[in-house]
Amino acid sequence: MTPTPCRVTAVDTYDIRFPTSRELAGSDAMNPDPDYSAAYVVLRTDSPDGLEGHGFTFTIGRGNEVQVAAVHALRPHVLGRPVDALCADPGSLHRDLVGDSQLRWLGPEKGVMHMAIGAVVNAVWDLAAKRARTPLWRLLADADPAWLVSQVDFRYIADALTPADALTLLRDGRAGAARRAELLRERGYPAYTTSPGWLGYGDEKLTRLARQAVADGFTQIKLKVGADLDDDVRRCRAARAAVGPHIRLAVDANQRWNVDEAVRWTCALAPFDPYWVEEPTSPDDVLAHAAIRAAVAPVKVATGEHVQNRVVFKQLLQADAIDVLQLDAARVGGVNENLAILLLAARFGVPVCPHAGGVGLCELVQHLSMFDYVALSGTTEDRVIEYVDHLHEHFVDPVVIRDGHYTAPTAPGFSATMRPESLARFTYPDGTFWAADRAQRTERPEQPERPEQTEQTEHPQHPRQDGAAA
Amino acid sequence: MTPTPCRVTAVDTYDIRFPTSRELAGSDAMNPDPDYSAAYVVLRTDSPDGLEGHGFTFTIGRGNEVQVAAVHALRPHVLGRPVDALCADPGSLHRDLVGDSQLRWLGPEKGVMHMAIGAVVNAVWDLAAKRARTPLWRLLADADPAWLVSQVDFRYIADALTPADALTLLRDGRAGAARRAELLRERGYPAYTTSPGWLGYGDEKLTRLARQAVADGFTQIKLKVGADLDDDVRRCRAARAAVGPHIRLAVDANQRWNVDEAVRWTCALAPFDPYWVEEPTSPDDVLAHAAIRAAVAPVKVATGEHVQNRVVFKQLLQADAIDVLQLDAARVGGVNENLAILLLAARFGVPVCPHAGGVGLCELVQHLSMFDYVALSGTTEDRVIEYVDHLHEHFVDPVVIRDGHYTAPTAPGFSATMRPESLARFTYPDGTFWAADRAQRTERPEQPERPEQTEQTEHPQHPRQDGAAA
Repeated sequence: MTPTPCRVTAVDTYDIRFPTSRELAGSDAMNPDPDYSAAYVVLRTDSPDGLEGHGFTFTIGRGNEVQVAAVHALRPHVLGRPVDALCADPGSLHRDLVGDSQLRWLGPEKGVMHMAIGAVVNAVWDLAAKRARTPLWRLLADADPAWLVSQVDFRYIADALTPADALTLLRDGRAGAARRAELLRERGYPAYTTSPGWLGYGDEKLTRLARQAVADGFTQIKLKVGADLDDDVRRCRAARAAVGPHIRLAVDANQRWNVDEAVRWTCALAPFDPYWVEEPTSPDDVLAHAAIRAAVAPVKVATGEHVQNRVVFKQLLQADAIDVLQLDAARVGGVNENLAILLLAARFGVPVCPHAGGVGLCELVQHLSMFDYVALSGTTEDRVIEYVDHLHEHFVDPVVIRDGHYTAPTAPGFSATMRPESLARFTYPDGTFWAADRAQRTERPEQPERPEQTEQTEHPQHPRQDGAAA
Repeated sequence: MTPTPCRVTAVDTYDIRFPTSRELAGSDAMNPDPDYSAAYVVLRTDSPDGLEGHGFTFTIGRGNEVQVAAVHALRPHVLGRPVDALCADPGSLHRDLVGDSQLRWLGPEKGVMHMAIGAVVNAVWDLAAKRARTPLWRLLADADPAWLVSQVDFRYIADALTPADALTLLRDGRAGAARRAELLRERGYPAYTTSPGWLGYGDEKLTRLARQAVADGFTQIKLKVGADLDDDVRRCRAARAAVGPHIRLAVDANQRWNVDEAVRWTCALAPFDPYWVEEPTSPDDVLAHAAIRAAVAPVKVATGEHVQNRVVFKQLLQADAIDVLQLDAARVGGVNENLAILLLAARFGVPVCPHAGGVGLCELVQHLSMFDYVALSGTTEDRVIEYVDHLHEHFVDPVVIRDGHYTAPTAPGFSATMRPESLARFTYPDGTFWAADRAQRTERPEQPERPEQTEQTEHPQHPRQDGAAA
């Protein structure tokens, strides 16, 4: 008698919110009130060893329930699937999710519905890596190039990258992979830090934290800019003085500008040798990024944390619009789409410096960069992963930073699993933290429950949200 | 004593689904199973005359509950607002919704969250027009140009259209407006029909319906293409033979192709003189549309029903990527963003031929085209609104087509109000239709409740959803 194959028996969703708007020093100026949150999903199986896959989408608070509803809407596609088949071909589920004829209308391949697909697909990869008893970066780096190609959806990118191109890149990427895996385990993957640069910090604090970052081994820091040009000139001067001429200093405008403003502002900061200007304008605006890049060189242009899918990344590359590609592990359709994006970047020779921070984005994205180093681009030159030091304590396998580098994960999986006690405490609205908080509000009703609108009303041209996830 | 101003007292949402997958003849080939749906919202007020504003997002079934959740998430921004202020400046609410720092993370300005904003903003314009006792097209056409400019968000489009440009366009557009309003009331606004062209129709039916369309006064019809080239050649030949050389014949590929396929396919159909090729590839791919347009001229390239916002439309225009701009009343951020898009189109001299069909899209979008004719572009030359004849019976003020033209609405509002009995019957899952349907399924359990996945699995490169709304 053939044994019954293990299947996915439950797709459980959680609305997890951390009250970061009350606790995060320095968050108020750029981020009026982000409550870093996750629409979290657990794929449960009837595997005798209790195998589970965990995944999530990062949000900054309000609307996390919409994101959870979107993950929930995907449940029928996953429930009952055999674990063997899922792990052997996550791309099959990815195609079914992206191709759901009715759900696709809500995108296609962008925004809430697409991020939900990313959460579920990433949970499958977590499942696959746990089942293979290997960290995801290693699973990807050891995988057969032809199988990796089969995991990529080439629709809408074949004019820039064909399956044959991808196969060549991946086969070439294998040369020296074993040696690079060793180096990775020894030295880790370079990181940079946004910690000194929050807009609300005074110059003294900025200077102190910038020096500390250098002392901690970081070779690049990042400053938030875009609120007031005179302030930014002064802060960049202070930061450059603090770190000296050899540390890279990136600036991040969080989508604040039109083309003209971006060029004017960046040129005004040029004397302080900014390494890149990040998100100078709308993440949807390929042509504006190209115009800005042409005007601000040699300052580099970076974007990606809000880029919706591989189609927009492809165009940013085709139009020579970016110098640095900042993929995000949980914004697009999961590992499968990020494989496409890493391959596109390799094809165009553009370095990938992932966005991280938020909730668990550092944990996830390190795997993608490490795979890229070991088995695709083969280098960490001009490549750094963003690092922000918060909320790691909620993860079972948190990132470890040593001497300005991400340490290569050794635990099986995608480092996506949140601690059960964190789930219980920060589930919204009924986890222990939020229940207690509500009780306290009832006693002190002066604390508002509804969103503050003054921020937007005062600055209609300048939404101030985007610094939220660094 | 000053009387208390009227306010918005409730923001009620409805999950409305019509079982079109079981009833629509010809829908199966391109659309395996669309259940045309609406995430519907009613803004209730304490105005003594019972004033309400109605709005909605169109979806095609599954996921409509996600869209409803997104509309619900906007409620705190609207509840309690004074009706006077809302109607005097809908742009203020529009900016608050788009600028909500936390909700914006879920886009920004795209997908589920942005469509929800569109539903709420459109409901406000419905409220404003009802309050002014005028159809929306008339309210817009009579409005002060400077006020209209104040309703537009120029962020990210100022490199192509400044407020001064917009003001000039709107002031120039006023010349002859009164005469054009008269002509509009006499003759209506030209329509075209997709009815003959569903992919599943046999040649005999196609021929019969194409002849009928011409007899009904339409001067343009549209055929779905993209599944099989030989079939498409045969169908285009039959359609051209049926309508003769002077009727325009558009073809619609519903995003099926990469660049190469789009060029090859369109050139193969060129002998039948297609007027435009619609949605040849991803709606996100500005550069691909530009490449396709350059290769298939003189066949025109049209897109827009899935274009997410003004930023992408701006680029399609900047890159000379489209000949025809197909705005959708309920895909972007409502009337305010569609004003920006109409102004961009006017600035670049590209005709607007709106997408319609679905649930209530004809009802909404006619107002935008009629405003454009009377007070902005000043012409209907090369301009037609799509028309599909279904589900109009659920609206209190349904469109009226006469001799291939949309008749100018005279009832106050945005024609968005659905009949109360339709809301009661088709609310999902507990409206009378769906409750009875569920009872019947319980008796005959062989009908599946979960989505069919065969469609996507068999055609991973060719999602077949998009014909759904014509």
